[in-house]
Amino acid sequence: MKIVDIRERSVTLASQMRNASIDFSKMTASVVAIVTDVVRDGKPVVGYGIGSNGRYAQGGILRERLIPRVVEAQPEDLMDETGGNFDPGKVLTCMMQNEKPGGHGDRAVAAAVIDMAMWDIIAKVEEQPLWQIISDRFNGGAHDERVLVYPGGGYYYPGKGLEPLQDEMRGYLDKGYKVVKMKVGGADLDTDLCRIEAVLEVVGDGSNLAVDANGRFSLEDAIAFGNAVAPFGLFWFEEPGDPLDFALQSKLSEHYAGAMATGENLFSLQDARNLILYGGMRPDRDWIQIDPALGYGFSEYLKIDEMLTAQGWSRRKQIPHGGHQLGFNMAAGMQLGGSESYPLVFQPWGGFADDVDIVDGYARPHDTPGIGIELKSTAYRELKTITET
Amino acid sequence: MKIVDIRERSVTLASQMRNASIDFSKMTASVVAIVTDVVRDGKPVVGYGIGSNGRYAQGGILRERLIPRVVEAQPEDLMDETGGNFDPGKVLTCMMQNEKPGGHGDRAVAAAVIDMAMWDIIAKVEEQPLWQIISDRFNGGAHDERVLVYPGGGYYYPGKGLEPLQDEMRGYLDKGYKVVKMKVGGADLDTDLCRIEAVLEVVGDGSNLAVDANGRFSLEDAIAFGNAVAPFGLFWFEEPGDPLDFALQSKLSEHYAGAMATGENLFSLQDARNLILYGGMRPDRDWIQIDPALGYGFSEYLKIDEMLTAQGWSRRKQIPHGGHQLGFNMAAGMQLGGSESYPLVFQPWGGFADDVDIVDGYARPHDTPGIGIELKSTAYRELKTITET
Repeated sequence: MKIVDIRERSVTLASQMRNASIDFSKMTASVVAIVTDVVRDGKPVVGYGIGSNGRYAQGGILRERLIPRVVEAQPEDLMDETGGNFDPGKVLTCMMQNEKPGGHGDRAVAAAVIDMAMWDIIAKVEEQPLWQIISDRFNGGAHDERVLVYPGGGYYYPGKGLEPLQDEMRGYLDKGYKVVKMKVGGADLDTDLCRIEAVLEVVGDGSNLAVDANGRFSLEDAIAFGNAVAPFGLFWFEEPGDPLDFALQSKLSEHYAGAMATGENLFSLQDARNLILYGGMRPDRDWIQIDPALGYGFSEYLKIDEMLTAQGWSRRKQIPHGGHQLGFNMAAGMQLGGSESYPLVFQPWGGFADDVDIVDGYARPHDTPGIGIELKSTAYRELKTITET
Repeated sequence: MKIVDIRERSVTLASQMRNASIDFSKMTASVVAIVTDVVRDGKPVVGYGIGSNGRYAQGGILRERLIPRVVEAQPEDLMDETGGNFDPGKVLTCMMQNEKPGGHGDRAVAAAVIDMAMWDIIAKVEEQPLWQIISDRFNGGAHDERVLVYPGGGYYYPGKGLEPLQDEMRGYLDKGYKVVKMKVGGADLDTDLCRIEAVLEVVGDGSNLAVDANGRFSLEDAIAFGNAVAPFGLFWFEEPGDPLDFALQSKLSEHYAGAMATGENLFSLQDARNLILYGGMRPDRDWIQIDPALGYGFSEYLKIDEMLTAQGWSRRKQIPHGGHQLGFNMAAGMQLGGSESYPLVFQPWGGFADDVDIVDGYARPHDTPGIGIELKSTAYRELKTITET
């Protein structure tokens, strides 16, 4: 049982949209296909990994450092104790050979794509959906029959007025979503308040609306924004300041009593632990959004989950960023708070299965082996070509 | 006045040596040459940047993200207010367009190489050594006539016994060094203590010896090691634990009264500030080793310097990691505590000018325009070829 080939490719996530921090005009991501010699249904098991959005493709790091280490490893060094399946934790250790500690940035993004494909393989070898594997291994066999999903949307587009924003949100409700998210901090406060009020006209109540500043605010701006939106009772106020400015986050929690959320730009156990130790996050109301597809994968996330639990955090306050099927499987199998979702943006890579049915803001997990990438036809059509060339 | 071309190349830093965290068998770094249309001495001014060691070449990020942004920028957006020279701060801002906050890893390493070349250009346009530019702009015209330098050495090599280690250290003393550094944490405590005692036989006193654990120790191991070496009165105990484990660093400072040093794996203002806020570092004795050639360059370092000063740290407690001429120029021009030095390792890229004269552990800055890369003939010979192909 061994890895036969690892292929990577950069794909475009380009669009005209922007958040408060960046535009996506040249956004890319890495995708990988890992071919094994394990045969299921008469074909070799192939695992797929799709990079999350916002941090660009990592072809250089994949080709020059991470992939050669895995391909050159002894097969037995990548197996689990039974010898009947791979061990993604060992694959991650292998990828991180001769990598110094600290500096968890693009390297973490690159490793995460490989790790996602490895977990896809694990589940396909076992002929189980990944959420079932996660449930059995890490949640005592329990899982959720439905997962809270919310669309990450409400981006700024050139010339986009309030009506298109309302139309976008109406579209989410029509699809079955209940809680929606919109970007803030990319305009002045008055403009953003108008945008928020316009969306509230559609979604009805602040408890159905999360806002995301993408790390743009100073403490002063974050406090002013928080004061202005406090009466709305929003679902959460996300990434108010720089994701590493734990002092800002901590001070803001003294001013903003509503729920806050952050974590998508923290890519390691060490960074996540510092958020919990120094960021003043409140386990009774705040949300942790670490994205496994940006931060060394689900294999690293398991250590973060362990740390969060040890620090008194419920899994129900974890809600991974990224709107990918890995986060969705984790939410179902570990009974997390939910998962982000991208029904419209980052196509064809964002979003879940083609036939995913969203009812009252919840979606049901799939029942095919693996992460379920094959169920998203536009993405799968492109992914398949990686191993054909 | 504009940038005509930016060329990058990956070079090898491979060797058989290792520290407690990694081996250098496949170590690489990026080097760049930035060609301008400014003419000095009848030739276009070319700036060179050499990546620091330990974090690999970053060709993918340079080619796909950072270099295109700079090359596609309007020339006036990269100029200083006088229009008579470039503004590296603006070049860094340009490189960081559409880059999300947080995740300061490989991207920071890539940006640093460009930034180094930009500062080389600044000084060459002004026909001054870089340390003079730094002195005039950021230190009220004051500078040091001599800079404390110490060799980063004492690595583990296969089969290297105590005698070769002592010979290595004798070699440093013969070259004029006084304080030397050796790796620890890559062997058991008893073995490392034997190695330390062997080196002390050569350098005479603990105040001439720094030790570097490269982030390897748990808190328990770090305390045990600290207790064992405390009687030696070492120059410093470097990077005892994971560079982002500020809680470990802080707790260790309650147990180890001697000087400690860390920072080489923190690549941004945000990470450096968190070290100062949460790491328990003591301004009266500890050392800050942020490496500008790994962390977005000298342009980012200036913000870190400002933060350190605001937090009550003397510039004399800053001593950049990396053994490169940028750190040396900074130490002379800003009157820092000194600079690391690599007379033996990472050749031909490590080390200073060929004719650098080290007396009593101090070296004198150069008097040619720029960083001084042309004064290191083996490196310059290879760098020149980048613009010739």
